[in-house]
Amino acid sequence: MKGVIAKLAPAANVIDLSHEVAPQHLQEAAYILLSAYRYFPSGTIFCCVVDPGVGSTRRGLAVRARLQNSDYLFVCPDNGLLTPIFQNAETIQAVSLDKPQFQLENPSATFHGRDIFAPVAAHLAADVALDALGSSLNPSTLIQLDWPQVSYQDNCWHAQILHVDHFGNLISNLSAERLEPPFERYQLSLGNVTINGIKRTFADVAVGEAVAYMGSSGFLELAIRQGDAAKAWQGHVGSTLLIRNKQF
Amino acid sequence: MKGVIAKLAPAANVIDLSHEVAPQHLQEAAYILLSAYRYFPSGTIFCCVVDPGVGSTRRGLAVRARLQNSDYLFVCPDNGLLTPIFQNAETIQAVSLDKPQFQLENPSATFHGRDIFAPVAAHLAADVALDALGSSLNPSTLIQLDWPQVSYQDNCWHAQILHVDHFGNLISNLSAERLEPPFERYQLSLGNVTINGIKRTFADVAVGEAVAYMGSSGFLELAIRQGDAAKAWQGHVGSTLLIRNKQF
Amino acid sequence: MKGVIAKLAPAANVIDLSHEVAPQHLQEAAYILLSAYRYFPSGTIFCCVVDPGVGSTRRGLAVRARLQNSDYLFVCPDNGLLTPIFQNAETIQAVSLDKPQFQLENPSATFHGRDIFAPVAAHLAADVALDALGSSLNPSTLIQLDWPQVSYQDNCWHAQILHVDHFGNLISNLSAERLEPPFERYQLSLGNVTINGIKRTFADVAVGEAVAYMGSSGFLELAIRQGDAAKAWQGHVGSTLLIRNKQF
Repeated sequence: MKGVIAKLAPAANVIDLSHEVAPQHLQEAAYILLSAYRYFPSGTIFCCVVDPGVGSTRRGLAVRARLQNSDYLFVCPDNGLLTPIFQNAETIQAVSLDKPQFQLENPSATFHGRDIFAPVAAHLAADVALDALGSSLNPSTLIQLDWPQVSYQDNCWHAQILHVDHFGNLISNLSAERLEPPFERYQLSLGNVTINGIKRTFADVAVGEAVAYMGSSGFLELAIRQGDAAKAWQGHVGSTLLIRNKQF
Repeated sequence: MKGVIAKLAPAANVIDLSHEVAPQHLQEAAYILLSAYRYFPSGTIFCCVVDPGVGSTRRGLAVRARLQNSDYLFVCPDNGLLTPIFQNAETIQAVSLDKPQFQLENPSATFHGRDIFAPVAAHLAADVALDALGSSLNPSTLIQLDWPQVSYQDNCWHAQILHVDHFGNLISNLSAERLEPPFERYQLSLGNVTINGIKRTFADVAVGEAVAYMGSSGFLELAIRQGDAAKAWQGHVGSTLLIRNKQF
Repeated sequence: MKGVIAKLAPAANVIDLSHEVAPQHLQEAAYILLSAYRYFPSGTIFCCVVDPGVGSTRRGLAVRARLQNSDYLFVCPDNGLLTPIFQNAETIQAVSLDKPQFQLENPSATFHGRDIFAPVAAHLAADVALDALGSSLNPSTLIQLDWPQVSYQDNCWHAQILHVDHFGNLISNLSAERLEPPFERYQLSLGNVTINGIKRTFADVAVGEAVAYMGSSGFLELAIRQGDAAKAWQGHVGSTLLIRNKQF
């Protein structure tokens, strides 16, 4: 993919966002995009290849989204990878990648990242207009994932683990703004692990102890200070997390 | 290596091709080069360091190869890493890296990647001529690997696994052009796993099922849809793959 | 972090030095810096994020160090990561990162790499002066690690393993210059493994055999030729290595 981009857009600055998405795991890929996009310059092109349906009839997409007063471009399969982008965007413009002249000749059936998405992203980087790359699509027809929602009942939030990071920290889908001080009142349960209170950072507990904190992506996270929580607690993407408000 | 290149050729665009070659596995490295080089711009310099003989008397090389109407440059040990490049090139020009002025002073005996190959590649990127970098070599003296060949007998191709990718898909050395439609007639065997027919892509079988298909590098591949075939079948580089033509 | 840098210093050439430091392992990170810095151009900015104390009261630093006739800049937590840099530098200038205008707004308590160190490094790359980034610090107040020292008694060096590389080779803290030819006279012991003599390179022993050699970073190393010594011998960072001079 980087060779193709170097051919078509030699001045492009190419950054690897992640190579550690669990194979074919669209929801984890979508979370990584959600947590990272706002830190990139307006105009950044995200070429996203988590593509279990490669070679089938699923469409390829190029999308311009207006998010937080910036414009971001996305090139990817139409498989739900952009669900949180769609949910947060002010405006969306989308095209179907049906113009072979902007793609490699004789594309393979199993590596559209190299043969379709990378050349399209490179043409965008080389200032080809979005609507030249394919036929316009109604954004309401784009595939969306069933994004895991949090629910609240009996003074308890029911949340899920969205992502496990490099250190084994567990990131949930509960937004920081759902919770209110004093944070000592919350009791968290993941399987048979219980954590009392939400702290600011790792160093607020002793080395080896469990800690919950508002993570750097705006979501509630769980960790073991200087340890690997995912391994110790067998937590994984999809694990249920309960956050009980003990004041009630 | 990247620091050395940044010193000598600050404008060079450096791309990591792979850090996942099995340690010292020349054949796998050669396969990765073969599958990737044509996607890079003409003039690309491939600095290839899989170097089990580092510090011994094996030579260092800089090579210009004419391939598919493009010129590619390779800097690497003379250990067979370029075997498929040599087999496919229209012309080859090679020099032995015997001019210390283009290398770091006091090179170590165990990291020629940093001390010899990176500085030579950087000098090429900074427009030093190939033949300035060392004495000319007769291409027929360059080391070649015994490249695993396919054979055909009793209506059956005997092939080998050349590479296992990030997903656990198994890539063989059988070129797509050896096989002819209808592809349903082929029966594949790897150990005690049997697959009937060759499909277009993963999505042509159910999730969790075995599938054979013509891979994106032009070779026959085996996979489990959304699974890890190498792990499930204990397939590895060197495993034997039989492709029987049932029509005969 | 790379998004933040792309926003603030779009022309910066960003190189990944390592993503394989054992989590929170300051000494290993410090060793990697020590072994690599001199190969980078003068003026290089090293943005180093191994940060077990993130969000606590530990300071953030920007440092200019004069080393081997070059100037290098370092942006990192004040936690000892720069210990060998401090020990080798001719001059040190340091500031405390206490000017929020050079950092992201509302920094998180758990990811200062993205919110503080990356923007500060990017401002340096965009030619902001070091002393604009924070208040001047007395270098003698900077945190230093207890760096593992070698000792010599009864004709025997007592050393430690500092780093395990990608291949499982074990790198010790014994400088090459401590030893003198003939190198056959040294006998090395790591746990119950004994190696006689120090060689030039891997190829000086048979495939699968143990070998000791002066490594490319200037330290004594142990390996198994074409094998994984760390796995085979259960060697790890902190393991004790004895080097006995048999001539006495």
